[in-house]
Amino acid sequence: MRPSLRHIAQRLGISDATVSNALHGTGRVSTDLREKVRAVAKEIGYVPDHAGRALRAGRTKTIGLLVPDIANPVMATLLSELELAARRRGYGVMVANSADNPATQASEIEALLARGADSLVIVPRRGSAVGPVHVPVTIISSAASPLNTVSSDYRSGGRAVAAHLVAHGHRSVLILGGAQASDVGIERVAGMQEVFSANAVRFDIVYSEVTLDIGSALVQDWKPGTHSAIVGAYDLLALGALAQLRERNIRIPEDVSLTGFDDLVWCRFFSPQLTSVRMDHAAVADAAIARLDGEPCPATLIPTELIIRGSSGPARRASPKRSTRSPRAGKITR
Amino acid sequence: MRPSLRHIAQRLGISDATVSNALHGTGRVSTDLREKVRAVAKEIGYVPDHAGRALRAGRTKTIGLLVPDIANPVMATLLSELELAARRRGYGVMVANSADNPATQASEIEALLARGADSLVIVPRRGSAVGPVHVPVTIISSAASPLNTVSSDYRSGGRAVAAHLVAHGHRSVLILGGAQASDVGIERVAGMQEVFSANAVRFDIVYSEVTLDIGSALVQDWKPGTHSAIVGAYDLLALGALAQLRERNIRIPEDVSLTGFDDLVWCRFFSPQLTSVRMDHAAVADAAIARLDGEPCPATLIPTELIIRGSSGPARRASPKRSTRSPRAGKITR
Repeated sequence: MRPSLRHIAQRLGISDATVSNALHGTGRVSTDLREKVRAVAKEIGYVPDHAGRALRAGRTKTIGLLVPDIANPVMATLLSELELAARRRGYGVMVANSADNPATQASEIEALLARGADSLVIVPRRGSAVGPVHVPVTIISSAASPLNTVSSDYRSGGRAVAAHLVAHGHRSVLILGGAQASDVGIERVAGMQEVFSANAVRFDIVYSEVTLDIGSALVQDWKPGTHSAIVGAYDLLALGALAQLRERNIRIPEDVSLTGFDDLVWCRFFSPQLTSVRMDHAAVADAAIARLDGEPCPATLIPTELIIRGSSGPARRASPKRSTRSPRAGKITR
Repeated sequence: MRPSLRHIAQRLGISDATVSNALHGTGRVSTDLREKVRAVAKEIGYVPDHAGRALRAGRTKTIGLLVPDIANPVMATLLSELELAARRRGYGVMVANSADNPATQASEIEALLARGADSLVIVPRRGSAVGPVHVPVTIISSAASPLNTVSSDYRSGGRAVAAHLVAHGHRSVLILGGAQASDVGIERVAGMQEVFSANAVRFDIVYSEVTLDIGSALVQDWKPGTHSAIVGAYDLLALGALAQLRERNIRIPEDVSLTGFDDLVWCRFFSPQLTSVRMDHAAVADAAIARLDGEPCPATLIPTELIIRGSSGPARRASPKRSTRSPRAGKITR
């Protein structure tokens, strides 16, 4: 049985109210008695009941953080930054994992509220709605999502990586677009498409789940010369592709340029190192918490940064067979 | 303000008790009234107060999960498996992150209990004690920890990787041991030392934090021929070393064999692929939750498995300069 305030009161033969006053430093309690109360509390392992106290006070200063997949390295980084930002502003945090499942997302929101969260930060499962919630909520998604409160500027990141390839003379690219229902993926790919279309660069898009194994499988039958660059909308796809291409002795960037998006720490440990787009997770987290904290005008769109490394360079001269084809934008493969 | 049972009662001009009966299906409430109550509850966004109910019932069936570093890929995997195992047995979960900080660990344990956790699974921060806690607790650490309840059999994993290298004729190895205060690291290295010592294999050990960058830095000045194998007690160290050795055009495994420990998914995407030791995180998680669930004899030591890949092979013939030295075990560098 959980030690309660009453256990301390009974042990010392005093009232519950006196124990409460002694523990919380309220009312008139002698120093001697206060020390006795605290000694007994420690001895029996009494833990103050914040949930109960919060119910009476009507405010817990606890933020519930709900993310779709803790095992995803990007999500894990964002989650750590959210915890730091919340603590820095004096909030407690509770973490829940919606396990990439809409039913779990709804029940976890309810569970966070029931346990005393009085505001929420939600990274929604891709393509899912968040029902009405009667506490302040910040949603971290992408500018493509009608629910979005704060996010990285994925679209400008997509534009930057495409502009980098256009500047290196690439005229035909393969985009590994990730999940078609993801608001984050949609913005990344939209930024790329904008720039490729404006420059009459031919592009193919393939949609898929996002794992290293799938990135590798997507380029298993890809033939050198088909495209001069492969553009991953996620590092996991690009790094999986990198391993597969190297396995097949296809040279990067001599035979094909390769880029990613996320700037995972792993990008620097592959050979060649992967060109990618870096997000400022700390700034996103800080803006999300600042908004809940009532700060007047926190940022809503956080800049991204293109990090150019050895995996991308000048386009290989197109093979004669391909160069006879006219550029054609937007062929979509699923 | 959070919608309460009383708001519903006031709206409908009925008692709190009747609202409670209507919502929980207790007492005698007409179908008509029950539907009215539920409609109002939905309209105003009433969320049942599990924390309050649990306080009265004395049991929440909620497990608090406390891990030291959510951003660590191994921890993220274990955490996901713990969540799955808990839900499978009908438990709710709350997650907290001790952020690799002993003070946070203590305050987060208190916070989990205050929010209604009635049992805990703790992956302790390395080398830290967990104070007395007055609910059932399972601790996932290693057999080296006096607090341990269930863990992977790291020692036998260490033995297996060392035996593999001994069988391939390695007589002088460098162990990248990770943090010296980690109970997990201690067991891994102890298993290796056992087998190397028994076979008169000379070994040096270097201790460090565990990141890709540090793994890379640790072998920056390493000279080929100094050891015939480099043995990482963690994949992050071994993969960081792999990138550095390749950068320096040192061939793996021709010039030096390299092994890791953790079997991160990344091992298969480096070139050569990394030999490593796989943990059964699902079995560890299941045993941890089974123990809290009161199952009579859940396993306490979960087997590991050596996965042999391209990074390890026969020892390179020792260079004449080194072969004149007699084997000497246990030189420790910090």
